[in-house]
Amino acid sequence: MPILVMKFGGTSVANLDRIARASKRVAREVANGYDVIVIVSAMAGKTNELVGWVNETSHLYDAREYDAVVSSGEQVTAGLMALRLQEMDIPARSWQGWQVPVKTTGVHSAARIEEIPSDNIKAKFGEGMRVAVVAGFQGIADDGRITTLGRGGSDTTAVAFAAAFDAERCDIYTDVDGVYTTDPRISDKARKLDKIAFEEMLELASLGAKVLQTRSVELAMRYKVKLRVLSSFEEYDPEAGTLVCDEEDIVESNVVSGVAYSRDEAKMTLISVADRPGIASAIFSPLAEAGVNVDMIVQNISEEGRTDMTFSCPVDQVARAQKAMTDAKDAGDINFHDIVADQDVAKVSIVGIGMRSQAGIAAKMFEVLSNEGVNIKVITTSEIKISVLIDRKYMELAVQALHDAFELEKA
Amino acid sequence: MPILVMKFGGTSVANLDRIARASKRVAREVANGYDVIVIVSAMAGKTNELVGWVNETSHLYDAREYDAVVSSGEQVTAGLMALRLQEMDIPARSWQGWQVPVKTTGVHSAARIEEIPSDNIKAKFGEGMRVAVVAGFQGIADDGRITTLGRGGSDTTAVAFAAAFDAERCDIYTDVDGVYTTDPRISDKARKLDKIAFEEMLELASLGAKVLQTRSVELAMRYKVKLRVLSSFEEYDPEAGTLVCDEEDIVESNVVSGVAYSRDEAKMTLISVADRPGIASAIFSPLAEAGVNVDMIVQNISEEGRTDMTFSCPVDQVARAQKAMTDAKDAGDINFHDIVADQDVAKVSIVGIGMRSQAGIAAKMFEVLSNEGVNIKVITTSEIKISVLIDRKYMELAVQALHDAFELEKA
Repeated sequence: MPILVMKFGGTSVANLDRIARASKRVAREVANGYDVIVIVSAMAGKTNELVGWVNETSHLYDAREYDAVVSSGEQVTAGLMALRLQEMDIPARSWQGWQVPVKTTGVHSAARIEEIPSDNIKAKFGEGMRVAVVAGFQGIADDGRITTLGRGGSDTTAVAFAAAFDAERCDIYTDVDGVYTTDPRISDKARKLDKIAFEEMLELASLGAKVLQTRSVELAMRYKVKLRVLSSFEEYDPEAGTLVCDEEDIVESNVVSGVAYSRDEAKMTLISVADRPGIASAIFSPLAEAGVNVDMIVQNISEEGRTDMTFSCPVDQVARAQKAMTDAKDAGDINFHDIVADQDVAKVSIVGIGMRSQAGIAAKMFEVLSNEGVNIKVITTSEIKISVLIDRKYMELAVQALHDAFELEKA
Repeated sequence: MPILVMKFGGTSVANLDRIARASKRVAREVANGYDVIVIVSAMAGKTNELVGWVNETSHLYDAREYDAVVSSGEQVTAGLMALRLQEMDIPARSWQGWQVPVKTTGVHSAARIEEIPSDNIKAKFGEGMRVAVVAGFQGIADDGRITTLGRGGSDTTAVAFAAAFDAERCDIYTDVDGVYTTDPRISDKARKLDKIAFEEMLELASLGAKVLQTRSVELAMRYKVKLRVLSSFEEYDPEAGTLVCDEEDIVESNVVSGVAYSRDEAKMTLISVADRPGIASAIFSPLAEAGVNVDMIVQNISEEGRTDMTFSCPVDQVARAQKAMTDAKDAGDINFHDIVADQDVAKVSIVGIGMRSQAGIAAKMFEVLSNEGVNIKVITTSEIKISVLIDRKYMELAVQALHDAFELEKA
């Protein structure tokens, strides 16, 4: 029988009623003729409770013990859903990560899946089991200790299972009903997309659209897993949600697929840095070591051998960035007159695979923003994305204006 | 280094503060030079919450899924205590049942421990680890699925580890400070025993003194594990609690060590049964099949080939016993005129290894009860125990009178 992977997030299994509701969706796919692998998160709030206990017990905690404690949440949901399905006369059983086993690296709390042997579960499907309910977010390292994949890791578990079992599709049930052209809270013209390409989703995921974990989209792209995002709170509809798929599976699409934003950005400028070979490395190596996630970088034109270097990073890393730069200056590795932080900026981006083949998109974006009186502070581009840093107070305005200008409300 | 096993029950690890307090006790024993194996229960209330979810999800639940869900409670406590100990600079790590592995039978929710290989944990002790925190109550079956040992199973886990690791002692920390000559709520003369023999503890455990699980005492007796019961809420005192030990380790003791009682008993009488060979089997086989726990049995003197057969059982099994007997009568397997249930009885017992060598104890017991005007309905005896069934309204009186008569308040 064809295999379907269904993943239910924390809000979709928040209590026994919701577990029952999710089980009904599973039952429907069993009736449709699928053998189903269900990946479950912990009941909403449980993971936070467990993490809170760990933090309260130990400040610099042992990540191996953190994983042992925190992984218990998914275990409970998996058992309860298996019981619920059995109650509906569907042959089901639960699997914890180590029972499959989901083999991962030994980087506790941020492990990566290395291998998912499919023989155990396939054998059970062969014996008549119809649903394997698997605890998401967790695995086992070489030394036999439990690992977790980090926040959002259940999405990644789901995609990895879909790849390992050559599933027909991987359905991610969540509390939103799909991927939108932009955040509906910012533009009431935001439209749900029926399909979106992996590359676009990847840009959107990393740009702050919190629908899917970036790593899960990367995996889906690499293994060509058809990924569908849909709501567990809507009526059943086989066409619901947004399909994240290969570019070739999308017949027609707008040049720009979506407008994303990220509110918590900061712009830092090193004033009057010596413009010599190796200066970029001298600046960004210490920042990387200090754990600062540098995003955009701009270097001004050099004047008399000196230049200004501007970069952006998350606003909560500003203090860390300043310390790293001051330390590097004190150590004599770099020199600058001043370091200036602008903490009132936001990033707005347009994303679309159509941009590859169509010129003038960037020019149009800049013109739209200019017409609204929005000053652009930093620009970066990729093949299918243009991002700008602007004053945070213009963020909503910019998102709405771009959504209108590229006519994203039209399919 | 010598090994000590310490077990903390649910109320002793009910929250982070209590886990911290228990950890201090562990730290003290580490400072005393022990390598410590800690067996933990789930935080008080957790197991009931999990069991509640299972029952609400499924009426005739799959015990394998029940075990997967319910075993998560101990896992959390084990991780948290390991973290707490590390925070106190004590090298510690947690182990779940399947990681040790605690190998059990496949009888889910009521599994028995078959083997505990000690090499994994011993190797870690060899590398400098000082405390292994093990999730109690759970193990793994041959098929790789999690099992649980049934309620109170953490006591059994603790004793089994003490046996497997040849521990110097097994300390059971609980919410009472030891084993008493009788229930202090019934007699204010009740005295804490410093020592009690395994055989006595076994009788007391199965007679309703809920301090230790019967199976754990059996195991301790078989493997000669020194067992100490003590309170986790008292100040530290190396001599605290009650030591359950071999008869030979008790130099002097009273003839009677304790008075036990069981409130929820019923007496059933089959009136005028044919007194023929095989009649006992014809009566008690169907009762056993119906799951009735028959305790005491008395057969009256036969008159004209007929007799009355009396037995006792827990009061909540009366209906089941009546149905089993009526069914057997209808099937023609037995015959009787009537079946009478007396649901207002209680069992009172005196226990003591000294009874083996001293005559007249039973006579004294009967005399004491007679002097108090208490009528004895049924009697059973073993080598070290005498039990009587009496009207429930006399239960407290009988316990107090016997405690006084055998001078149990005196050491």
